[in-house]
Amino acid sequence: MATILDGRAVAKEIRAEVAREVAALGEQGVPVRLDVVLASHDAASATYVAMKRRDCEEVGIVSEVHRFDESVTQERLSDLVDELNADGRVSGFFLQLPLFGHLDPVPLTSAIDPAKDVDGLTPLSAGNLAVGLPALLPCTPHGVVQLLKRSSIEPEGAHAVVVGRSNLVGRPLAQLLLRENATVTVCHSRTRDLAQMTRQADILVVAAGRREMVGAEHVREGAVVVDVGIHRAEEAEGGLTGDVRFREVEPKASYITPVPGGVGPMTRAMLLHNTLQAAKMQRAGDRPR
Amino acid sequence: MATILDGRAVAKEIRAEVAREVAALGEQGVPVRLDVVLASHDAASATYVAMKRRDCEEVGIVSEVHRFDESVTQERLSDLVDELNADGRVSGFFLQLPLFGHLDPVPLTSAIDPAKDVDGLTPLSAGNLAVGLPALLPCTPHGVVQLLKRSSIEPEGAHAVVVGRSNLVGRPLAQLLLRENATVTVCHSRTRDLAQMTRQADILVVAAGRREMVGAEHVREGAVVVDVGIHRAEEAEGGLTGDVRFREVEPKASYITPVPGGVGPMTRAMLLHNTLQAAKMQRAGDRPR
Repeated sequence: MATILDGRAVAKEIRAEVAREVAALGEQGVPVRLDVVLASHDAASATYVAMKRRDCEEVGIVSEVHRFDESVTQERLSDLVDELNADGRVSGFFLQLPLFGHLDPVPLTSAIDPAKDVDGLTPLSAGNLAVGLPALLPCTPHGVVQLLKRSSIEPEGAHAVVVGRSNLVGRPLAQLLLRENATVTVCHSRTRDLAQMTRQADILVVAAGRREMVGAEHVREGAVVVDVGIHRAEEAEGGLTGDVRFREVEPKASYITPVPGGVGPMTRAMLLHNTLQAAKMQRAGDRPR
Repeated sequence: MATILDGRAVAKEIRAEVAREVAALGEQGVPVRLDVVLASHDAASATYVAMKRRDCEEVGIVSEVHRFDESVTQERLSDLVDELNADGRVSGFFLQLPLFGHLDPVPLTSAIDPAKDVDGLTPLSAGNLAVGLPALLPCTPHGVVQLLKRSSIEPEGAHAVVVGRSNLVGRPLAQLLLRENATVTVCHSRTRDLAQMTRQADILVVAAGRREMVGAEHVREGAVVVDVGIHRAEEAEGGLTGDVRFREVEPKASYITPVPGGVGPMTRAMLLHNTLQAAKMQRAGDRPR
């Protein structure tokens, strides 16, 4: 029987830490503020933004949403990014993706000041991470590492196998695990014998975005298994399932994340953590460039 | 008996291609120019710069060296970086490291326009590489991939194991091999059982900077072995040796790079390639940002 890696509990711990620091900064007259740019009619995006605002409220972070309809131009958003970069009241901000189809997100996100890039996903943040300079870290991979470390699972010296190579999770997670002194293997859709690779993992992180693709045959007895996937599944408990066949894998794993309640809450908590970090860095003047 | 991966021959092929394109651009009135900033009395640096200038001359690239003595200030070099970024005649440039001890290289290299970053080592170039945007690629890792591909060794689907995680070689090489659809493992000084990891490699790249650390016990029969190391060794043929014990490993490998004459010439050729690339990108206006 595996120990459940309880993302909800660890996220709660992180939110409490953030709330304390936000309150302390507030007493020194330094407000912490997160701005969100919402330029789509995507229903899921609206839900995520509402969730993120509730999270902010809980920890005392001010949040502002800049909402646009289809008439918004690339130029308008480009100007807004410049304004938010320059606005000393804004600790950090992000563009909720996807944007309306007529907009190109790449030059917009690339223009975000790395000191305010609370998603940690701009090319410069990715580069700072890659070369070991200070950077705000992407929320999901950072959440995975925090979940491990706060559960006393030390990546150092472990063989970590990451399934998936997205810019959002797989690639930056590989960088973070390397920084934690793990030996890191990245697998993906072109990997020849996936099970043979994943069975070597001391720590297996699955971020492939393919529903229940990882089963017992992929997992070594005693491995730590982290499931980043999230898929609707009406028949499943909680209405959601992951990239891992939990029932099959859980008996072999030493630790395992559930879906929901594993990585998801950690991602949300790390956005709050990053917003606080951004405020602290800007205050101290040791901002990433 | 392994086939020797002849870096000198492949580099010569690349230089010939670059020379043809440089000549064609010249006929259209577009000069290709590489500038070098040399701010040290380091003897090896002086040798490298002289070598790079000779390479440029051979392929028709104009080169200029900006030489400074110890009296140079951080501000002067910072201004020079800005000038070179702005100078339309300069296709690309780099700072020959190390600089004099009183200078901080990080803000200087970080300020290099990624469209002129022919070393491919600035944080923004690393980030563009990491997220899959256009970027000038770091010379040694790109040289390794070109040496493999031009020798008909296809990384796609192969298990590539990289020993070493430097910003100069290991990390960017892992990114490049991932982009080539290899399954990639990065090992380093904290890897628990190195031989057990490296013996799995279809393609083993050793960039650990430790003289002759890899022997027969680290290599699977039939593996491709690339040795990025370079160390003085008076007793060795050519006065140099690598990170791999060549005599021991060569009989097991299917392909192997010699030292000297393997990766070294490729690194030099890729600098010329990058300078040409930079000139072409700036001309076409599809520059990395």
